[in-house]
Amino acid sequence: MTGTIIIAGLGPGADDMITPEVRNAINSATDIIGYIPYVARIAPRAGLSLHPSDNTEELDRAAHAFELAANGHRVVIVSSGDPGVFAMAAAVFEVLETASEAYKAIDIQVLPGITAMLAAAAACGAPLGHDFCCINLSDNLKPFSLIEKRVSLALEGDFAMAFYNPRSKSRPHGFEKILALLQARTSPDQLIIFARAVSTKAQEITITSIAEAQPDMADMRTVVIVGAKATRTIETPDRRYIFTPRSSPSQ
Amino acid sequence: MTGTIIIAGLGPGADDMITPEVRNAINSATDIIGYIPYVARIAPRAGLSLHPSDNTEELDRAAHAFELAANGHRVVIVSSGDPGVFAMAAAVFEVLETASEAYKAIDIQVLPGITAMLAAAAACGAPLGHDFCCINLSDNLKPFSLIEKRVSLALEGDFAMAFYNPRSKSRPHGFEKILALLQARTSPDQLIIFARAVSTKAQEITITSIAEAQPDMADMRTVVIVGAKATRTIETPDRRYIFTPRSSPSQ
Repeated sequence: MTGTIIIAGLGPGADDMITPEVRNAINSATDIIGYIPYVARIAPRAGLSLHPSDNTEELDRAAHAFELAANGHRVVIVSSGDPGVFAMAAAVFEVLETASEAYKAIDIQVLPGITAMLAAAAACGAPLGHDFCCINLSDNLKPFSLIEKRVSLALEGDFAMAFYNPRSKSRPHGFEKILALLQARTSPDQLIIFARAVSTKAQEITITSIAEAQPDMADMRTVVIVGAKATRTIETPDRRYIFTPRSSPSQ
Repeated sequence: MTGTIIIAGLGPGADDMITPEVRNAINSATDIIGYIPYVARIAPRAGLSLHPSDNTEELDRAAHAFELAANGHRVVIVSSGDPGVFAMAAAVFEVLETASEAYKAIDIQVLPGITAMLAAAAACGAPLGHDFCCINLSDNLKPFSLIEKRVSLALEGDFAMAFYNPRSKSRPHGFEKILALLQARTSPDQLIIFARAVSTKAQEITITSIAEAQPDMADMRTVVIVGAKATRTIETPDRRYIFTPRSSPSQ
């Protein structure tokens, strides 16, 4: 009997942001596949095999899922956030594209999750309340020039932006260049948000101006949100909110 | 005693896409405020007042929430999808900005939800698996020329795109123009997805080429996803998936 593959989003970190749909899929699974820290979020139980693997092994991980499902297993591949946003869903379809007919008979479902940029936005207000772009700053799978081009175009259109994977130990300089591009092209008080480990105990949110932003404010656990021109803050006695109004004047 | 305002995302329609965090907020509320069809999703119970209101009354709705919370109520404003994406969160902060000091003492929390574009993407594969833009096609609060400009820039950057509020009875012609722009600027076989009433019993998903797309494929319950150049489909014996690969060649 053929098994199934479900690619499920665990949300950004908090257990109470995992949808019941995803929770049910995990409870019915025989096998959980994913990057080590995401599989670590799944409670072990009898009848469930956990298969943690290292980062950058997306295609191997997808191939493993097909192999298990072809043997009748109910496989759940877990991603942080939403599996369709710079995560495992696209990798699974890349493997499916050239797979055998046997693998093509396996039912694949993608279950959405709360993606990091939306959890980060909610944690500080509504900075993505108007049109926005979502850009992966990793140049592992695309030329850096394309990232620069997209950021430039987004600035030209006055989109807010969310940056995933802004900076890692192996890629320390890309974000420096992008920040320099933002500093050269925006007014000094345009706002930027560094949201780290959103919805976990380690959550840290920094709202600052693009002029004052420093490259080391971002790491791999950070999602960066760049405000549009109209993005602004509100101070209350207890908090500081940031939002982008719904309306945009004529340009 | 001062009350609280929570702006919560109900997700696109399916009850099992509502996060436990949002469910708990609803269970602890004294008042639910929102657009009629969203409030209709909340089960009545003793001690809970439901305040449905018509569309286009976002600012009145937000003001009502502050009034109730200032009188000690635990108010939950419900939005479909995610409250931070073209929904109630920004409207609440617009009202807060010019509110009295009493209102500024009210604690406001935004709880994220599964936004329509991510549920739609998951339902058909992973079309947003690479960089993308999210654009509200309604020109109620911005000039139509700005929408055209942003779509043009997104095409130039080969972003995938998600369009919210593509077409309504009062705005039948905007989407026609945007579709004509896409048809003029993309190759005829570039893909587009019309995802209507995602995750509900009325869900309908149409994957077609931009050349064959028709304006009346979209209405107010539709989210439209425009593929990037590399977006493609996979046919299996049972299904047709659509995805955008994670990698992008040099341009």
